[in-house]
Amino acid sequence: MKKTVITISREYGSGGRIIGKKVAEALGISFYDGELLSLVAKESGYTVDFVRQNDQKKTQSLLYHLYMGSQILPASDMIFIAQSKVIKDLQEKESCVIVGRCADYVLRGRDSVINIFIHAPLLSRTERVKNEYGEKADNYKSYVQKQDKSRIAYYNYFADDAWGKAQTYDLSVNSDIGIDNAVKLIVDYVRAKQGE
Amino acid sequence: MKKTVITISREYGSGGRIIGKKVAEALGISFYDGELLSLVAKESGYTVDFVRQNDQKKTQSLLYHLYMGSQILPASDMIFIAQSKVIKDLQEKESCVIVGRCADYVLRGRDSVINIFIHAPLLSRTERVKNEYGEKADNYKSYVQKQDKSRIAYYNYFADDAWGKAQTYDLSVNSDIGIDNAVKLIVDYVRAKQGE
Repeated sequence: MKKTVITISREYGSGGRIIGKKVAEALGISFYDGELLSLVAKESGYTVDFVRQNDQKKTQSLLYHLYMGSQILPASDMIFIAQSKVIKDLQEKESCVIVGRCADYVLRGRDSVINIFIHAPLLSRTERVKNEYGEKADNYKSYVQKQDKSRIAYYNYFADDAWGKAQTYDLSVNSDIGIDNAVKLIVDYVRAKQGE
Repeated sequence: MKKTVITISREYGSGGRIIGKKVAEALGISFYDGELLSLVAKESGYTVDFVRQNDQKKTQSLLYHLYMGSQILPASDMIFIAQSKVIKDLQEKESCVIVGRCADYVLRGRDSVINIFIHAPLLSRTERVKNEYGEKADNYKSYVQKQDKSRIAYYNYFADDAWGKAQTYDLSVNSDIGIDNAVKLIVDYVRAKQGE
């Protein structure tokens, strides 16, 4: 296939990560999610553990940091900058699937990027987190909603754009259709885009 | 196929109408766009011409009408109410594709409804309106943007919801993939949803 980066943005509990992994397998290309952390660590100079702790977390506002007298950018911002460089380098180097990390925003305007959004009703996502993700929570519904808020805040802080707006993506899929059906739709979309 | 209503919401110039028509043909089910007008006229008691003039137009606010001393609901609201009844009746009666008219909102919460959103970059839509729709305008870009605003205002007024939010739809497609490719994706989605 022609060199293409497929970005996967996803609601928490929608199965977006596993869908991305299966799309990469079906197309025979690399998959980056947690795999990005070691590249980001190398780029930023932080340890992998430190990068993991600050991964996809929104920082306090810049104003807050100025008020607190910080002389340097907060760690989350530094990590986002290093991560953006890693994502842009990957896009120039190889075809791959990248999950999360505002990759759609980081690569905006570049050729050969296909942006996918995976979502699902709250009930389905709550069930998936409870039964398949192995997460422990007292109230799964509010746990999922809290993760949603955190993801939206991260995107809106760094990407300065609206999360989940259909026009931002080439294809948005409700994963209630089933993981394998969603994978097939995305693979068909990529192949059609490439004129195959 | 099992009884299913497919609603198509679309950005102006995205080719959503023709995509909907081709989806209906591929599935061998009815297609309703302008075809709804005569049913709405019959339901509301207005003439077809009057319904057409007020079709998919946002009304002034209810407050404005109260201020103006109107005793009855404005025509656009009356037409929307009649149209909602027609759409609900269709959903109970037959499988079909319905374009626009907040049908996704009108049928929300009902079984066997699949909501599709068709969008495309502004440049593609401007080109399509100029070259294929046979519309005349001095400035096609601002003409398309004006139609967008009118469509968003209509949806937000009657549906009281966010237009173009990916989570509202089962599938959102950028029609730059090509009309026939978009049709195929939608038909595949419908068949997968029906477990075929």
